[in-house]
Amino acid sequence: MAILGDNRYGKAEVRVVRVDRSAEPHTLADWNVSVSLAGDMREVHLSGANDRVLPTDTQKNTVYALARRLGAVEPEAFALALARHFVDRQPGISRARVHVDSYGWTAVGPHSLVRSGGEVRTVAVLHDGQSGSWVVGGLRELTLLNTTDSEFWGFARDELTTLAETTDRILATSVEARWRFRSTDCDWGTAFSRARQALVDAFAGTYSYSLQQSLYAMGCRVLAEVPEVCEVRLALPNKHHFLVDLSPFGLDNDNEVYHAADRPYGLIEGQVLADDAPDAGPAWS
Amino acid sequence: MAILGDNRYGKAEVRVVRVDRSAEPHTLADWNVSVSLAGDMREVHLSGANDRVLPTDTQKNTVYALARRLGAVEPEAFALALARHFVDRQPGISRARVHVDSYGWTAVGPHSLVRSGGEVRTVAVLHDGQSGSWVVGGLRELTLLNTTDSEFWGFARDELTTLAETTDRILATSVEARWRFRSTDCDWGTAFSRARQALVDAFAGTYSYSLQQSLYAMGCRVLAEVPEVCEVRLALPNKHHFLVDLSPFGLDNDNEVYHAADRPYGLIEGQVLADDAPDAGPAWS
Amino acid sequence: MAILGDNRYGKAEVRVVRVDRSAEPHTLADWNVSVSLAGDMREVHLSGANDRVLPTDTQKNTVYALARRLGAVEPEAFALALARHFVDRQPGISRARVHVDSYGWTAVGPHSLVRSGGEVRTVAVLHDGQSGSWVVGGLRELTLLNTTDSEFWGFARDELTTLAETTDRILATSVEARWRFRSTDCDWGTAFSRARQALVDAFAGTYSYSLQQSLYAMGCRVLAEVPEVCEVRLALPNKHHFLVDLSPFGLDNDNEVYHAADRPYGLIEGQVLADDAPDAGPAWS
Amino acid sequence: MAILGDNRYGKAEVRVVRVDRSAEPHTLADWNVSVSLAGDMREVHLSGANDRVLPTDTQKNTVYALARRLGAVEPEAFALALARHFVDRQPGISRARVHVDSYGWTAVGPHSLVRSGGEVRTVAVLHDGQSGSWVVGGLRELTLLNTTDSEFWGFARDELTTLAETTDRILATSVEARWRFRSTDCDWGTAFSRARQALVDAFAGTYSYSLQQSLYAMGCRVLAEVPEVCEVRLALPNKHHFLVDLSPFGLDNDNEVYHAADRPYGLIEGQVLADDAPDAGPAWS
Repeated sequence: MAILGDNRYGKAEVRVVRVDRSAEPHTLADWNVSVSLAGDMREVHLSGANDRVLPTDTQKNTVYALARRLGAVEPEAFALALARHFVDRQPGISRARVHVDSYGWTAVGPHSLVRSGGEVRTVAVLHDGQSGSWVVGGLRELTLLNTTDSEFWGFARDELTTLAETTDRILATSVEARWRFRSTDCDWGTAFSRARQALVDAFAGTYSYSLQQSLYAMGCRVLAEVPEVCEVRLALPNKHHFLVDLSPFGLDNDNEVYHAADRPYGLIEGQVLADDAPDAGPAWS
Repeated sequence: MAILGDNRYGKAEVRVVRVDRSAEPHTLADWNVSVSLAGDMREVHLSGANDRVLPTDTQKNTVYALARRLGAVEPEAFALALARHFVDRQPGISRARVHVDSYGWTAVGPHSLVRSGGEVRTVAVLHDGQSGSWVVGGLRELTLLNTTDSEFWGFARDELTTLAETTDRILATSVEARWRFRSTDCDWGTAFSRARQALVDAFAGTYSYSLQQSLYAMGCRVLAEVPEVCEVRLALPNKHHFLVDLSPFGLDNDNEVYHAADRPYGLIEGQVLADDAPDAGPAWS
Repeated sequence: MAILGDNRYGKAEVRVVRVDRSAEPHTLADWNVSVSLAGDMREVHLSGANDRVLPTDTQKNTVYALARRLGAVEPEAFALALARHFVDRQPGISRARVHVDSYGWTAVGPHSLVRSGGEVRTVAVLHDGQSGSWVVGGLRELTLLNTTDSEFWGFARDELTTLAETTDRILATSVEARWRFRSTDCDWGTAFSRARQALVDAFAGTYSYSLQQSLYAMGCRVLAEVPEVCEVRLALPNKHHFLVDLSPFGLDNDNEVYHAADRPYGLIEGQVLADDAPDAGPAWS
Repeated sequence: MAILGDNRYGKAEVRVVRVDRSAEPHTLADWNVSVSLAGDMREVHLSGANDRVLPTDTQKNTVYALARRLGAVEPEAFALALARHFVDRQPGISRARVHVDSYGWTAVGPHSLVRSGGEVRTVAVLHDGQSGSWVVGGLRELTLLNTTDSEFWGFARDELTTLAETTDRILATSVEARWRFRSTDCDWGTAFSRARQALVDAFAGTYSYSLQQSLYAMGCRVLAEVPEVCEVRLALPNKHHFLVDLSPFGLDNDNEVYHAADRPYGLIEGQVLADDAPDAGPAWS
């Protein structure tokens, strides 16, 4: 016989843009908001009875209404308010998760902005009616490259190992970082800026013998610079740049011309915790 | 002080194609293989010492060498062999995870094939040196649509609810399904075909009052048709098709002309288990 | 001083789905329609006066209204009617171009369908108030592969040539084909099916010494099988499959294990015309 | 009977990265280079004889070798040299086209850089053995938004028009611009910077009654600021931001909360020429 296990449902990718014209230059909050709700949803799965199902269309409406009601807030604060809204008001909803992707814009005039580029600020909030709220900030698609100061040698070998050792290589990655806050009360904007800067500084400042070493340094730096954060999780693809062999053409290549490869790529993942980090509960679930 | 938490590393997206010319029509295994290894990797994170790090380049080589050695096998068997290879041979590697995406091709001549389309067969294998192996099969991008036989009404309401009830709508989704096998010994090809057919049949055959109801029916059907499977996890985006209001133009629209929306979309996620499903251990980790 | 040159404007990517429930199994037309209009638009560019600008929002409405009015028609016929609609009725619009991408679905039940995959049928219609209408059919993302029967040798060489000759390689491509019809009156559905089959048959049936040779054979075959067509344009990326060198591991590799590369790729483009092809006019503009 | 028409072939998307370590901070040229060659290629299409076909693999090698030989040059100069290389040296090649996409990086340390974001600088060079060389510069994915100073009213209407007029809307677009240079000798870096700035300034500085008006202003501004340019071609998608109707929830919405739509979108295309622009020849072919 079959049993219903964990389940959740919601509205994904609500694209809300909020314009703040209260001062010049005007500013934008440009967000992609996803909501996911859980509770006792047995009946709708078994018989299709929807009386406990708040429509995902209503969830979309709620995103827009709260954007209007809350006004200019950081995405972490918005996500917290949105998650609590559903759990507090809707019988049968015991847990809500909200994700916000936030896209950056830079003023180029009093009423004009240019999109800042590929980098995305991320927020994941979980609010549980019993155990409370967790906030995870982050970013993705922050692409970093060191032109030198990276080596890779002394690695393990087996009979299928053909890689040459190197004492000077390009090290490049597209950072996906998420950081867990200790509490739900924080100067979110400052925390984000400091965490981002810590990632850049640690990557740039680490003479690296492996991408794992850079990852750990980046996690430690965020913890050091943002005391409100107690845990950092990083996923760092190793965006390989291969030195092109130009010797068949009578040319040397002193770490100058590279082929930027697409696939495959290395992928390094790890978490770094403060030694006094409280239990994560369902923060990452 | 900072502590290193869970971590892993590997080579992602190794694109291997194996041609079997032993009979006509020739056949292809067209795979995208990702490897992720874990073990005691403290030293490389802290000091950059790589002596326990089997290069991701070697992992790539291993994918190709095993494709040659194993010959014509199902992707589940390949992933099992590959994961075990690393844990069995490499001191310091205690756990390996292998993902395989498999793309379908159809013969159009003795030596000619056409790519079957968007649908992708997936495999995720975890092998742990202590606790053994888990196999999760699946698929994604199987896009299904019912033109009718779907209703949505009687749902919960709050002051932000504006959605109209409907007793006849299009129901469409792009199925992402993963199913956990009870053991590591199975007729993988037959199991995949039956699971896929069960998903299609249950979606098509369910008169649906909510996508959750269809999800549960699909999970139950896989369990019923593939007894080697003990758990199914499904993620079903509700690909909304909105009936276009043509009344301003003096036209009726009797469930005929729809706008296919991109974003936002509903997202329904759930798991269905056999009542005798063994503990999942790290299968989904 | 600056002069306004050619210009056009329109609504792109109107996603319209039309359900035909008149018989079982139900069928779908699943289209992505783009409209582009041109005429004397000097004033709107120079001063912003919009009195000759039919809003792109109206163009979107027109797509939906015509889908309702025209009912079950082939996309070529729809595009013709839509393009003529704007030029015939709107003073100031002298030329309209309509593109339709059409996605395939296969019945899996009386009211149920599964999306057929990545392949897309395309239509481009141009209607000019003075010179009339042109219809270009086509397809893209038809991925074909020959496991053998392909050689590449005897090519030109310079001092930067390092490629080895081969007498047995995989040949794979993702076909983008467009074919110009002689007239605006045709059995569009049959013509499409025959053209697609001609492309597949010619690719599969050509023992190929270069992808150019296959391209020309494919163009000729379409002309031969679909006499309503007078010109074929093809863009064929050479999706390289590189034989993996397994000799460092003591393994042979008799055209069995390949690496499927992403970038760079060869790109072969060409057109094949019937010797009595009428002038193309603005058909491709 | 069938006739071979226009044709060309080449290597697409060669990803070359050139590091300049001659001064700190180190700098990067990060390019995606595509080559396309044409000449008398009848034989290879008809019989597969490759003696006039310089392999696309050699074209790839040439990109890397020239990156080494030419050192630190602007992408326009690189494309010119590369196109001429093939036509000058290879009998049978009469025309070469080279495209370069260039990705920006910003120094964050003496040896460290961060990718600047989505915006891409583009170059298209055509060199013909008889008629000479043409250079087209450009950019794409420059996303601009005005929070106000945009109206849309007084437009043409028909019986399918339902759009409301507005005197205050968001105007947003993702600029794709290409500009034709008068000659092949120019300070390419400065020209690019000025053209980009002209686009931003004209978009931000135009009180707009239609996106066409902004397009024309942008083209004129580039011509005015970069006298080396004689023609500008622009494609501006109208990235619609729809004001959300919050009145069902008892909330006003004074141009504050918007839904950012994906599809469909308006698409405005146009060219602006200097009145003394020389004939374009095959520059845009």
